[in-house]
Amino acid sequence: MVNTPNTLRLLAMPALWMGAVQFLFGAVALVLHDDSIAESFLIPGGLTLLAAGVLHLVLRTRIHQISYRDALVFATLTWVLTGVLGALPIRAVTGVSFTDAVFESVSALTTTGATILSGLDDLPATFLMYRQFLQWMGGLGVVIFVVAVLPMLNVGGMRLLKAETSGPVKDDKLSPRITHAAHSLWLVYILITLGCALAFFLGGMSVFDAIAHSLSTVSTGGFSTHDASLGHFDSHLILNIANVFMLLGAISFGLHYRILQTRQLSRYWRDEETRVFLLSVAAISLLLALYLLWHQRYQGFWEALSFATFHLVSFITSTGFGDQDLTSWPVAAPVALILAGYLGGCAGSTAGGSKFIRNIIAFKTVRSDTMRLLHPAAVKEIRFQRQIVAPDIRHAVMAFFSFVAASSLLFTLALMGTGLDLLSAFSAVAACLNVLGPGLGQVGSNFAVVSDTGIWLLSAAMIIGRLEYFTVLALLVPAFWRY
Amino acid sequence: MVNTPNTLRLLAMPALWMGAVQFLFGAVALVLHDDSIAESFLIPGGLTLLAAGVLHLVLRTRIHQISYRDALVFATLTWVLTGVLGALPIRAVTGVSFTDAVFESVSALTTTGATILSGLDDLPATFLMYRQFLQWMGGLGVVIFVVAVLPMLNVGGMRLLKAETSGPVKDDKLSPRITHAAHSLWLVYILITLGCALAFFLGGMSVFDAIAHSLSTVSTGGFSTHDASLGHFDSHLILNIANVFMLLGAISFGLHYRILQTRQLSRYWRDEETRVFLLSVAAISLLLALYLLWHQRYQGFWEALSFATFHLVSFITSTGFGDQDLTSWPVAAPVALILAGYLGGCAGSTAGGSKFIRNIIAFKTVRSDTMRLLHPAAVKEIRFQRQIVAPDIRHAVMAFFSFVAASSLLFTLALMGTGLDLLSAFSAVAACLNVLGPGLGQVGSNFAVVSDTGIWLLSAAMIIGRLEYFTVLALLVPAFWRY
Ligand SMILES: [K+]
Ligand SMILES: [K+]
Repeated sequence: MVNTPNTLRLLAMPALWMGAVQFLFGAVALVLHDDSIAESFLIPGGLTLLAAGVLHLVLRTRIHQISYRDALVFATLTWVLTGVLGALPIRAVTGVSFTDAVFESVSALTTTGATILSGLDDLPATFLMYRQFLQWMGGLGVVIFVVAVLPMLNVGGMRLLKAETSGPVKDDKLSPRITHAAHSLWLVYILITLGCALAFFLGGMSVFDAIAHSLSTVSTGGFSTHDASLGHFDSHLILNIANVFMLLGAISFGLHYRILQTRQLSRYWRDEETRVFLLSVAAISLLLALYLLWHQRYQGFWEALSFATFHLVSFITSTGFGDQDLTSWPVAAPVALILAGYLGGCAGSTAGGSKFIRNIIAFKTVRSDTMRLLHPAAVKEIRFQRQIVAPDIRHAVMAFFSFVAASSLLFTLALMGTGLDLLSAFSAVAACLNVLGPGLGQVGSNFAVVSDTGIWLLSAAMIIGRLEYFTVLALLVPAFWRY
Repeated sequence: MVNTPNTLRLLAMPALWMGAVQFLFGAVALVLHDDSIAESFLIPGGLTLLAAGVLHLVLRTRIHQISYRDALVFATLTWVLTGVLGALPIRAVTGVSFTDAVFESVSALTTTGATILSGLDDLPATFLMYRQFLQWMGGLGVVIFVVAVLPMLNVGGMRLLKAETSGPVKDDKLSPRITHAAHSLWLVYILITLGCALAFFLGGMSVFDAIAHSLSTVSTGGFSTHDASLGHFDSHLILNIANVFMLLGAISFGLHYRILQTRQLSRYWRDEETRVFLLSVAAISLLLALYLLWHQRYQGFWEALSFATFHLVSFITSTGFGDQDLTSWPVAAPVALILAGYLGGCAGSTAGGSKFIRNIIAFKTVRSDTMRLLHPAAVKEIRFQRQIVAPDIRHAVMAFFSFVAASSLLFTLALMGTGLDLLSAFSAVAACLNVLGPGLGQVGSNFAVVSDTGIWLLSAAMIIGRLEYFTVLALLVPAFWRY
C-alpha cells in the first residue's frame, strides 16, 4: 500500500511553494495599492502556507526511501493539489465557478494554456502576471522538480522519471549527467526566459508584456495578456522571436545545459531527436505555407511562410499562441495544426505531445516490422542515436501511442456526450491531452461553452497528458496496488 | 521484377468472370424487354469477354509458380480492373461521370456500399440487382477466390492470404483444412444467402427485395434498392433478421463450414475471436441503447435496444445498412458507430474493419507491455485461443494499427483539402477504409457532394482497406521491387 505519511510529507513541498508564490503576488498587489487583489492572494496564500507548514512539522519523518508507487501517487497528487490551490485566487479575482477556476489553474500549471476567461485585456495586471507565472512555474516543475530533484531522492524516483517527463530512453542518456547538473538546469531555464523577455522588449513589447510573454513562451504554456494573443502586436518580428524561444522551450533542457557547458552548438544537430524535430518543423511549415498559397489565403510567399511557420511552431511545441484567425484558413489547415500538436516537442523539455523520440522509435519500429513481414530476413533491430533500441522500449513506445489513441477517442466521445460537435470535442481533447491549449469550433476562442462535466474531464485530460499517460494509468491498474 | 505474363494471365480470370456476369444481366434485361438496359450490359460485357478471351489464348503459359510479389500485384490489380470494368454499365445506365461510376463499382465490389447515386427507388430493377450482385460477388471473391483458390496455387499465394483477407494468425488455423474445404466454402456462402433471402421474404419483403437484400447482407455490403435503406420496410422483424445474417456474414466462413460439418454450434462460442466479437456486439449495443434512452431519443427500452443493436451490428460488421435518421441521434452516437466500424468483424469473413482477432491481440499486447513496465517480472507472453502469439505476429498487428491510424489521418486531411468539413471527411474516410459505407454530415445520404479528386482518393481508400493495408503498402516499399 501507499505510504501515506511519506506522500503527505512530500506534498507539503509543492503546497509551501504555491503558498509562497501567492503571498508574493499579494505583496506586489499591496505595493501597487490594489487592495482587493491583494486580499484575493494573501488569504489563500497565507492559509496554504499555514496548512503546509503544520503538515511539515507534524510529519517529521525523514524521507529515506520512497517507493515507485509513492512516487507515482505523489506526482499525480501534486498536479491535483497545486491545481486546486492555484485556483483559489483565480476564483476570488474573477468570480468564475470553482470548476472553471480549477480548470484555469490546472491549464496554467500543466502549461496547457486553455482558458475559460475572456476579456483578458481588462483584467488587473497582477492577476494576469500570476497566470503567466503559474505557467512558468509549471514548466519549471516539469524541467527541474521531476527531471532532476526526484531522481536524486532514490531509485523509485528514477523510475518515475521514466514514466513521467522524459522520453523512453532519455533517462539513460541524461540521468548521470543530470544528477550533477540538477542545480544548473533551473539556471538554464531562467537564462532562456531572460533572453526571451529581452528579445520581446527589443522587438517592441512593453516591459510588462515582454516579461509576461517570456514566462509563457519558454514554458511552452501559451497564455497571453491579450485576448488576441500575439495577434495583438501585429508584428512578424515578434512572431519570429516567439518561434525561436518556443523551439528552445521544446528542446531538452539537459541538452541546452550541455551545450552551455561545452559551447558546441553542433550538438543540437548531432542529437537525433532535436535534428528530426527541427527538420520536421521546417518541412511541415513549408508544406503548410504552400497549401495556404494554393488556397490564396495569402498573396506573398514570405507572408505565408511566416504565418505558417509561427502557427506550426506554436502547435508542434504545444505552446498554443495565436495570431491569425484560423477560421479564415482552409479547413484542413487548423486540423493539421492540431494533429501536429500530437507530435510534440523533444523529451526533457516543457513541450507536450508525444515527443519526437517516441515518434522516431515508433516510425522505425513500424518500418522494421513491415520490412520483416515482406522479407523475413530483413534486419530486426532498430537504432536511435546509433544505439540499438531494446525491445522493451519499443513495446513501451507502441503501448504509449495506443494510450494516446484510446484516450483521444474516449475523451472525444465523452465530450461529444456533453454536447460539443466533433470538431470542437476532438480539438478540445487534443488541446488538453497534448497540453497544447487552443481548440477549434465552439472552443475556438475559449472553453467557456463547455459544460461543468466537460470541464472536469478536460482538467483530468491535461493532468493525464502532462504525466504522459503511464503515471495515471498505473494508478488505475489493480495489480499496481497489490505489489 | 514482376512476371508480367503471369499477372496478365491471372487477371484474365476476374475479367472473364465480370464479362460473363454483365452478359448475364444483359440477357435478363432482354427477357424483360428492357432494350436500352440490355445494351448497357451486353456491349461492355461482350467486349470484356472478347478481350479477356484473347488474352487467355495468347498467353498460353501455364502458371506453375507465382511469386509473392506477383500475387500481391495481382490482388491489387484485380480490384482495380474489376472496379473499372464493373463501372461501364453503371455509367451507361445512369449517365454519371466515369469517376463516379468507378467509385460506385469499386464500392460495390469491395462490399463498401458507399454510393454516389440517389433516387434508387426509380432506377430499373435489372440495374439495381446488378449493384446488389456486384456486392455479393465481391464478398464471394474475398471469401473464396482469395482465401481458398489462390493459396492452392502455390506458396506465394499462402503468403498473400496472410497479407490479405484473413487475420494475422488465421492462416495457421485454417489453411490445412481450408485447402480441403475450398470447394465447399462457396456452398456455405450460397446457403447462408438463400437462408437470408427466405427469412427476408417471410419477414415481409417482396421476392425481389428479399433476394436483393440477401445479396448485400451476407456480403456485409450494405447496398439497398431503396434510398431509405432498411428504413423503407419500417419493421423491427426485418431489422432483427438483418442482424442475424449480418453477424453470420461477419464470422469466419471457415468456421461456418466446420460447424456445418460437425453440427457443433458450441464451436462458435469456443472460438475466441467469435466469442469476443459477439460479446462486444451485445455490450456496445446495450450501452448505446442506454445512451439513447438517457437522451430520451426513444421512450421504451426495447425500442431503443432494437434500434441500437441494429445500427451497431450494421456498423461493426461493416455492412452499413441504415434505418433511423442518425442526425436525430445525440451527436456522440453516430461518431461512436463510425468508430465501431474500425473494430470490424472476424477474420475470414466478408466484414471490413480491423477484425477482432487483431483487436484482441493488440489489446493483450498493450496490456502485457504495460504490466511489464510496472513490474518487469510480469508475464511476457500473450495467448490467443490458448496458443502463444509469436512476437512477429504481435509486431505485425501493432504495425497494422499504425497503418490504420496513419491512413485515416492522412486521408481525412486530404479530403478536408478537397473542401469537406472534419465530420464529413473523417466519416467518409472511415466508411471507405473499413469498407463500411455510410458517412455522416455532408456525406450523410450519399457521396455526390465529394469532388472528383476526393472520389478517386476514396476509391483508393476502399481498395487499400479491402486489401488490409499491407498488400498495397508493400507495393509502395521500394525494397519490395528489388528482391
Ligand atoms: K500550451
Ligand atoms: K459495407
